[in-house]
Order: sequence, then structure tokens, then C-alpha cells
Amino acid sequence: MNFCSQCGASIKLAIPEGDNRQRHICTSCHHIHYLNPKIVAGCLPVWQDKVLLCKRSIEPRSGYWTLPAGFMENGESTRHAALRETREEANARVSNLQLYTLTSMAPVSQVQMIYLAQLDDLDFSAGDETEAVALYSEEEIPWDDLAFQTIHNALKLFFEDRKKGIFPLHHIDLERPSKPPEN
Amino acid sequence: MNFCSQCGASIKLAIPEGDNRQRHICTSCHHIHYLNPKIVAGCLPVWQDKVLLCKRSIEPRSGYWTLPAGFMENGESTRHAALRETREEANARVSNLQLYTLTSMAPVSQVQMIYLAQLDDLDFSAGDETEAVALYSEEEIPWDDLAFQTIHNALKLFFEDRKKGIFPLHHIDLERPSKPPEN
Repeated sequence: MNFCSQCGASIKLAIPEGDNRQRHICTSCHHIHYLNPKIVAGCLPVWQDKVLLCKRSIEPRSGYWTLPAGFMENGESTRHAALRETREEANARVSNLQLYTLTSMAPVSQVQMIYLAQLDDLDFSAGDETEAVALYSEEEIPWDDLAFQTIHNALKLFFEDRKKGIFPLHHIDLERPSKPPEN
Repeated sequence: MNFCSQCGASIKLAIPEGDNRQRHICTSCHHIHYLNPKIVAGCLPVWQDKVLLCKRSIEPRSGYWTLPAGFMENGESTRHAALRETREEANARVSNLQLYTLTSMAPVSQVQMIYLAQLDDLDFSAGDETEAVALYSEEEIPWDDLAFQTIHNALKLFFEDRKKGIFPLHHIDLERPSKPPEN
């Protein structure tokens, strides 16, 4: 961040009064520009013994398989974001959303929420950012061609939990926070 | 947003190629500035039959009671953010965090996560943004002087769940998304 998005003046890094962290502060209008983590929301759509995966057609990880997921937009709920991404990336409709993995990725300042969901029908197809969409059984999952560690985790957990028939929320911190609390 | 934070040039609203929403785009360097919801993380600290509340000394809702919570920072996990806010606002230490309420507030583009937690000891005190910190039993809670609807919800749910002895995740969408998915 180099310039103030409010007034266009230059930005300095300083600790505001009453704060304990460096912030991006405008040198002219003194607006404080906070930077916060982003939420990625998506679904793990299930159809009988199979799950729906999308082959990415955009970077990062173009050509690799993932679950339909993407950045939550302003004005949405987390469930709405997961439904929208599933529709945009796979042209698929899902029901009975249940929060399944909540993964903090501190090093990249993202929080990923994957909802377990029931695929409504087989009327799905590749969206704009997707090369292909397909249903995979556990044995068929392209484990070596998954796009992200978080997706690998969610799929592994799902097939393990399915054996037991219970699907608890999995709350995962992928790496330790850069500044752990001084408890 | 009026100016590009990268190069300082003016911003226009337009739908980028391959997108379906208006974005803030720089007229010079063409950087796309996405706006995304923010996460508020906090704790519901429990000590015997009481819960810890903080009286706010800053706006909004200065003088009203709340749970220790605040905006998640870059580089944190959600649990770390909840621990940090509890320490900053109430100088309190908590353990055994369990995600208890996940509330999407679509109209203000925030997602609030409150963790049920065990207060470690009685060594707490008001932080910089807090006027007072106190333990309240169900009968003593200042219900008419709570700062936010989400905090009211979390406390009501807690005292109800306590009667049953089970504390499931409560997943709440406070208002309908502005643009529901066209399923």
C-alpha cells in the first residue's frame, strides 16, 4: 500500500495512538487503513458414494483438482458464498450445508470454510474458471493432482468420517500464528 | 475508495473481464481492488456459573456490555485472534476454546466467531478499550445494556445450552444476504 485510497496522498507506517501495531496511515487525511484476513468459502458436494471436484482453469494451480470454493464477497453470508461458488465454478446446486472444515491459514491471512453438502442433481458443468467437473469415489480421487493442502485435508477427513458415519466440525490451524499470544 | 493504493491514480467502477460484479479498478495501473468481509473473533469466558463481560469505553456502543472480541488481524488464526482480544480487552487468559457461534452479518460484511472458553483465573482487569470487566451469573446479566445483538444471542444460547449440558456450534445468518443465489 503506497497511497491513501480516500485522498490519494502518500502512506506512512506508524503505530496509531491506543494501538499496538504498525498500520498504514495517510500522511494527509490521517485515515488508518487496516488489513484483515479474507474468507474463502466452498462446498464438498456429495452424490451417493462420490464427491464433486473441479479442475481449475486459472492460476494458481491451473490444471489441478479442487472443491468449488472462492473468496467471500461483501454483503454475503458464509453459506451464501459457498452456494454461489458452487454454482459459479461447477454450475451445481447443493442442499443441507453443514460447516465441516474451518482452516486458518495464518501465513497467507486466509480462513477457509468448507461446507459438507448434498448435490441436488447431476446437472453440473464447468464454469468460467473451471476446465472440468466430475464425480469421484474415494478410490478414484486424483490425490496427486489436488490443488491445495486444505482440499486434500477436507477430502481425507470426509472419507475417514464416512466410515464412522459422523461428520464433526474440523477446526484446523495450518501453521502456527506468526505472533502467538503471550499467555 | 477514490484512489488506487498502488499507484495513486483515480479509481473507476467497472466489471472486469471474466467477472460478474462491479469492482474498484485503477484507471492507470488497472489493479483490481477487491473488498471482502472482515472477521470479528472473541471469547465467551466461563468461570463456575458466571461469564466474563466487558463494559466498552470506545464507540460504537461505549458504556454497553459485551464479550471480549474484535477484528482478526493478518497473520493470525481465528483462535489466536480470540485469545488476543480476550487478553487485550480484559487482561484475561482462557483455555479450551470451542467454536460456539458463527454469525454472518451480511449487511455490514462481517463474520463473527465466538469461542466458548474456560477462564483460567480471576486475575483480569479492564484493557485500553474497556471501562470495566466483571463476572455475571445468568440472573445478573445486564440484558438491557448489552452492546450488540450478536452478544445477546451468544449469551442467551449459552444459558439455554447449559441447562442441557451440550454446547453445539450455532450457525446464524443475522439477515438474509442482499443477493440470494438464484438456485
